[in-house]
Amino acid sequence: MSSTVGQVIKCKGSGGAWEAGKPLVIEEVEVAPPQAMEVRVKILFTSLCHTDVYFWEAKGQTPVFPRILGHEAAGIVESVGEGVTDLQPGDHVLPVFTGECKECDHCKSEESNMCSLLRIDPDRGVMIGDGKARFSINGKPIYHFLGTSTFSEYTVVHVGCLAKINRWPPWKRSACFGATVNVAKPKKGSSVAVFGLGAVGLAAAEGARVSGASRIIGVDLNSDRFEQAKKFGVTEFVNPKDYDRPVQEVIAEMTGGGVDRSVECTGNINAMISAFECVHDGWGVAVLVGVPHKDDVFKTSPVNFLCERTLKGTFYGNYKPRSDIPGVVEKYMNKEMELEKFITHEVPFSEINKAFDLMLREKASAASSEWNIEFYSCLLVTMDEGVLFDDVLMPFHGIKTWDRKP
Amino acid sequence: MSSTVGQVIKCKGSGGAWEAGKPLVIEEVEVAPPQAMEVRVKILFTSLCHTDVYFWEAKGQTPVFPRILGHEAAGIVESVGEGVTDLQPGDHVLPVFTGECKECDHCKSEESNMCSLLRIDPDRGVMIGDGKARFSINGKPIYHFLGTSTFSEYTVVHVGCLAKINRWPPWKRSACFGATVNVAKPKKGSSVAVFGLGAVGLAAAEGARVSGASRIIGVDLNSDRFEQAKKFGVTEFVNPKDYDRPVQEVIAEMTGGGVDRSVECTGNINAMISAFECVHDGWGVAVLVGVPHKDDVFKTSPVNFLCERTLKGTFYGNYKPRSDIPGVVEKYMNKEMELEKFITHEVPFSEINKAFDLMLREKASAASSEWNIEFYSCLLVTMDEGVLFDDVLMPFHGIKTWDRKP
Repeated sequence: MSSTVGQVIKCKGSGGAWEAGKPLVIEEVEVAPPQAMEVRVKILFTSLCHTDVYFWEAKGQTPVFPRILGHEAAGIVESVGEGVTDLQPGDHVLPVFTGECKECDHCKSEESNMCSLLRIDPDRGVMIGDGKARFSINGKPIYHFLGTSTFSEYTVVHVGCLAKINRWPPWKRSACFGATVNVAKPKKGSSVAVFGLGAVGLAAAEGARVSGASRIIGVDLNSDRFEQAKKFGVTEFVNPKDYDRPVQEVIAEMTGGGVDRSVECTGNINAMISAFECVHDGWGVAVLVGVPHKDDVFKTSPVNFLCERTLKGTFYGNYKPRSDIPGVVEKYMNKEMELEKFITHEVPFSEINKAFDLMLREKASAASSEWNIEFYSCLLVTMDEGVLFDDVLMPFHGIKTWDRKP
Repeated sequence: MSSTVGQVIKCKGSGGAWEAGKPLVIEEVEVAPPQAMEVRVKILFTSLCHTDVYFWEAKGQTPVFPRILGHEAAGIVESVGEGVTDLQPGDHVLPVFTGECKECDHCKSEESNMCSLLRIDPDRGVMIGDGKARFSINGKPIYHFLGTSTFSEYTVVHVGCLAKINRWPPWKRSACFGATVNVAKPKKGSSVAVFGLGAVGLAAAEGARVSGASRIIGVDLNSDRFEQAKKFGVTEFVNPKDYDRPVQEVIAEMTGGGVDRSVECTGNINAMISAFECVHDGWGVAVLVGVPHKDDVFKTSPVNFLCERTLKGTFYGNYKPRSDIPGVVEKYMNKEMELEKFITHEVPFSEINKAFDLMLREKASAASSEWNIEFYSCLLVTMDEGVLFDDVLMPFHGIKTWDRKP
């Protein structure tokens, strides 16, 4: 048993997210032991997502500071709190920003993954159990983010927000992969339109490719994205700016009435409407993934539904985090899906602000677009060089610096 | 072989729908022989539907007169045209207002029943093959209605619009039954809300009952409908007028977050929105059946979709007319579904205007409602007393006058 069990751990954490938009400071953070139904996890690597950037900028979002950001990561269980029976120190885990308590109506439903207890809540900065933070600096609480706070060498997570796996691949984009595979369910030989070719849209395309779709039409306002999208199975490209009529009409013409499935990954309300209206009558299914502005209104003629089109949305690709994610990891390990190609940059934890800079630069170049597309970069942040086994690193294209064992 | 084959048949037809809203006149109509891919059918009984009334009134609809109305019926094949191989004289058939050519993309898709060739088209008054009518009076063409024109002792129908069955039950309401059973697919023990307790809504409730739903919440602006709805499995009743908040909120409170399934049978756009928003997040599915006004716009927050709610519409309950209807008839014959309770009145063909009067009276009493609910009455019109076998008549509650065989 680790000598740290039951003790406060002092470690490096980017507790430096002291206020909105200011560079993160890596400094010593105290991480309290896990309480009932909680697990303390040593983070081995984490990725930076635009969601971290948005909540760091806190333009529109509730500002909760000081806060340890980060919500996509992989790690090892250091210790567990009371009542945790299905994880033990040394287990490999993926913290997940939405949870699975396995007891609420949603968890008991085969159809839902929207756990009532542990559903994503960006405004909550404390643990569910006692309403307190487990992080502190000089006695001052540092708040949690999305129940995960992975920009720290150690973090405390509710057991329901940890998927136990055998090995750690980069798993981030599996959510949108799930949107296509679990929700849109394209058949072999079918046509799929993907709106928005950012990282999320590319994962949707990858899902369509793996499902055997024969035509994958990428839709984006930036034609430069088409070239890289080909790697993810996109066969045709449509830039709505090239046409003087609605893009749904263009797609209907290209496909003899509409695509079989569409996946919306921009969060732009007009793209959502186009994604719905571009599916074929009789059998078309559109899936919304992109997160809209809170005041957006989806508008369409009800006749579009009556002609047997279906519209659904998904959260986290309909995956139940604890139940389903291990299977997705296996799929990757069995080479049924490719994830390496998602990684574009890597930086050590000490240089995490570089990762923010890279992402902000991409964001700025995308700002001219009215679509809120997640930029393509997937930034891998490594917490502690030399910690990982070689086989863990295989998934990460271009990462060749680790060769020591823990 | 019948001596009428290849001949023009002179028979009684309500060709008297000479102009909008004027009483029908039963008079002698000439019915030409069926051409390629057509079938001439002797109609044994037909029912009057509000759709007949709407197109007869032609308020808002394209007026196509003179026209033989009627689109829900049962009959016997008299003769077949060139190329018809799967029907022969003497076969029992149900004319269907939407067809199944078995060759277009829709017919080949497992998911669609919206045949490209024979899809419902209320504006078309002629046969698809040669663009001409088969009915005439003194050489003047009398137009067809919905490809069926069943208010005539004989009619000519495209072979793709005829379902071959072993025996004739009253089948009309099977479409909305299908909306629930085929599209909403409630599980055993689930909760279902039905908006609008007219004939269509009652069929939806019947579908929910047969599927084993444990709570069937009927929603209607007229509380008088609840009593009769109980016969169709409705367990609870909500009248939106009794509340000062949206009915979707009332239903969410009653059900701990929303119903598992809802079926919208009013055609009112606000009821459609309520029907969607009253389903549970995570797994709720809403199905639209009611036909909206053409300028209606469906509006909702896209977040309602992202929380894993699904909205779909259906046409004819997703049944493929030729492939699926015979199975529905068998279900009825095996007593898996009840249809007798749908029949409220019966009149002989010679008194068809009485049926119109009865329906108009119901319509007038419903007119104070903003919901476009199909009234409950199902009027059975018998073409020729004494034609039917006893066992055919069993389904029709209260019909005891036929005892002769053909």
